[in-house]
Amino acid sequence: MGLKLNTKYIDGFVSDAEVEAAWPEAEAAFSKLQGLNMTGWLDLPGRYDKAEFERVLEMAAEIRERADVLVCLGIGGQYLGAKAVVSALSESGADSDFPVLFAGNSLSTVELNKVLAALEGKDFYLNVNSKSGTTLETSLGFRILRQKLVERYGEEEARKRTIVSTDSVGTLHNMVVKEGWRVFIEPDDIGGRYSVFTTVGLLPIAVSGVDIREFMAGAADAWAEYRGDEGSGTSGLGGVRENAAALYAVLRNLCLRKGRTTEILASYEPSLNYVAEWWKQLFGESEGKDGKGLFPASVGYTTDLHSLGQYIQDGPRNMIETVIRVGDTGEFVIPAEKDDMDGLNYLAGKTLAWANDQALLAVAEAHSTCGDDGGCTPNMILELPEISARSIGHLLYFFEFSCALSALMLGVDPFDQPGVEAYKARVFERLGR
Amino acid sequence: MGLKLNTKYIDGFVSDAEVEAAWPEAEAAFSKLQGLNMTGWLDLPGRYDKAEFERVLEMAAEIRERADVLVCLGIGGQYLGAKAVVSALSESGADSDFPVLFAGNSLSTVELNKVLAALEGKDFYLNVNSKSGTTLETSLGFRILRQKLVERYGEEEARKRTIVSTDSVGTLHNMVVKEGWRVFIEPDDIGGRYSVFTTVGLLPIAVSGVDIREFMAGAADAWAEYRGDEGSGTSGLGGVRENAAALYAVLRNLCLRKGRTTEILASYEPSLNYVAEWWKQLFGESEGKDGKGLFPASVGYTTDLHSLGQYIQDGPRNMIETVIRVGDTGEFVIPAEKDDMDGLNYLAGKTLAWANDQALLAVAEAHSTCGDDGGCTPNMILELPEISARSIGHLLYFFEFSCALSALMLGVDPFDQPGVEAYKARVFERLGR
Repeated sequence: MGLKLNTKYIDGFVSDAEVEAAWPEAEAAFSKLQGLNMTGWLDLPGRYDKAEFERVLEMAAEIRERADVLVCLGIGGQYLGAKAVVSALSESGADSDFPVLFAGNSLSTVELNKVLAALEGKDFYLNVNSKSGTTLETSLGFRILRQKLVERYGEEEARKRTIVSTDSVGTLHNMVVKEGWRVFIEPDDIGGRYSVFTTVGLLPIAVSGVDIREFMAGAADAWAEYRGDEGSGTSGLGGVRENAAALYAVLRNLCLRKGRTTEILASYEPSLNYVAEWWKQLFGESEGKDGKGLFPASVGYTTDLHSLGQYIQDGPRNMIETVIRVGDTGEFVIPAEKDDMDGLNYLAGKTLAWANDQALLAVAEAHSTCGDDGGCTPNMILELPEISARSIGHLLYFFEFSCALSALMLGVDPFDQPGVEAYKARVFERLGR
Repeated sequence: MGLKLNTKYIDGFVSDAEVEAAWPEAEAAFSKLQGLNMTGWLDLPGRYDKAEFERVLEMAAEIRERADVLVCLGIGGQYLGAKAVVSALSESGADSDFPVLFAGNSLSTVELNKVLAALEGKDFYLNVNSKSGTTLETSLGFRILRQKLVERYGEEEARKRTIVSTDSVGTLHNMVVKEGWRVFIEPDDIGGRYSVFTTVGLLPIAVSGVDIREFMAGAADAWAEYRGDEGSGTSGLGGVRENAAALYAVLRNLCLRKGRTTEILASYEPSLNYVAEWWKQLFGESEGKDGKGLFPASVGYTTDLHSLGQYIQDGPRNMIETVIRVGDTGEFVIPAEKDDMDGLNYLAGKTLAWANDQALLAVAEAHSTCGDDGGCTPNMILELPEISARSIGHLLYFFEFSCALSALMLGVDPFDQPGVEAYKARVFERLGR
């Protein structure tokens, strides 16, 4: 269930010698990381609270039994991880079978009306995720839907149907104490964008029907693999190129230093579109400070080859691409046709998944080999064996681990987001708070 | 029903003198544009084929009567326009009430299985859009769904349920002749990404329930406004800054020249997300060549303020933002709460739409005014009065017109896409065609 980083389509752009020279920076970053605050996520897969985990499972079972839909309120790191996992697994098959509606993540009236319309005639629970309880979109959405819940079920039953993840102090926690809602406490040492393996992610993911034991096992696989041998007295990352997560951090930093400004995360499976949205927050918010960082963008292929493909092939040489390649996506055999009107019989008997994968390899070649400097758009390929709870757990942990190393190599704090205060202050001023 | 370009949040970055100096370039671009091939879209709103338009309306009525869902096959410019309009108007309210399923736009097995599952027990029609009929994703999807259609309805009825838009020659046209499917001929002088006002866009949009007369009227409003006075002997664009579409082209080119590499299209309405996808293809494919062009990215606010907001505020100073501001998005009054536990009563009685708009203005201020050079991320604001068939028609024409001028100012051909051949050749080689 591992994950591999295939560097074939970037090796012409970043040399072995450059990787070797930069490897000690990754080792230093890992040493530094282990001494930082806000790293509760780092060894979480090996030490998470088993009793709390059981409570999540029980609550998920209760919601699946007593409701038709879960409304999950939260924004940024308080919803993107859950949305990514639920989308990946619900769209991919039978793993996820219970509807989770994400709300409280915009101020759009149209969106709110859609949520309210979707709840007509449905039994629902509310799950609110907010550390402080003062985040505008989530607290407003919660106020509106809480009133709806009470209107529908009365005070007492509404109380039972409200489940909160929040800090141990603050506005939302005060409300919990006053109202008697059931609550999970979010760890102080894990920030929103690293929180998918806490109850913020786990409860909605479990409600959707995904096996969260497998999901955590995937993260544990990744943690065991990337931390290396803790007892050896080395940095723990292993030898040069032996650690996929560190290698990804090193390569993208080297590309940035060579003048690349934008990293595009590409996948050939539309069900992974929200994994890309989660990735954008993780890397954008962790690295985009002090004038630094690769701009994180995403595309869905082959679809967007007919949209951004031209730009990526022939536009400015300031991009790199990271491609998620999924091994097993299910079998569908391309049918033959008697008179071959469309000229596609040469594909008959092959699987659609094979054709998709050939397109992926052809595009990696085309995008990476047209430049005189060894690449117009160098490609890294992340090879995921399949889309399953375990492999997605591994993938998300891989990115968290890489991201923290990458930000530290860049010389920024992976865990703060000082820039968002600028707009927040102006919003509250305009709103007259 | 017009559209305004508010430049308040970019004026500190691009001066009046710079705009004035560049205006003649836009005028020259417009003169040149009128002499080019592939400009059939330019005056289309004023001269489109009324008989064909009536056929579209009749066929849409037939599909709505005889089916539960329309499956619309196409990729790139052969679906993004329709998807953008249908999404914008179906999510925004009652304008669009009939389901249109877009397919044939990826090689994902998961996606194909979703489409097949969605058709279980539903009556459907197929609408295929492909100029040549050899585009891999669409022709494969069509083969698979055509067999499904015949299996379900038999040869004769399947024939009636297949409607094609294609060139007057080529593989798909040959199939049309052989099979007797009903067909619309795509104009030779309009490329895919400029085709939303042809039958490629109009049929699925009409089937969805959107009033395509209003949609075309919006485009006609825009064409009348941006072409200026044709009889005056001037360029037709009007005086400096008097033409919003030309001003957008001028400003983004000036930003590019000042070292900006990326343009982010932002909207505060999730229903406009596919308008952004359509815009990315339009600008990316028209401009991204010869090493030139702004990279087109998109965000959905306020959602992504909690994701990419940090990067945009504090990351590298190489971006500009274009924000779609919608005037009327419907009324929802924020309710009061007796004991004000969440501290939001200061907003009670205000509308949610007002709060969303205050956030938009606050963010434009915050993103545009933090730099010493007059802007970390300069903002242009496109003010759309509402989301309606007419205003969306205006908006899409605005972008087409601007894009053609902008590409010509950049010195590239707005209508070709030579770079996509590189990957296509490699894909077909790998597939063994």
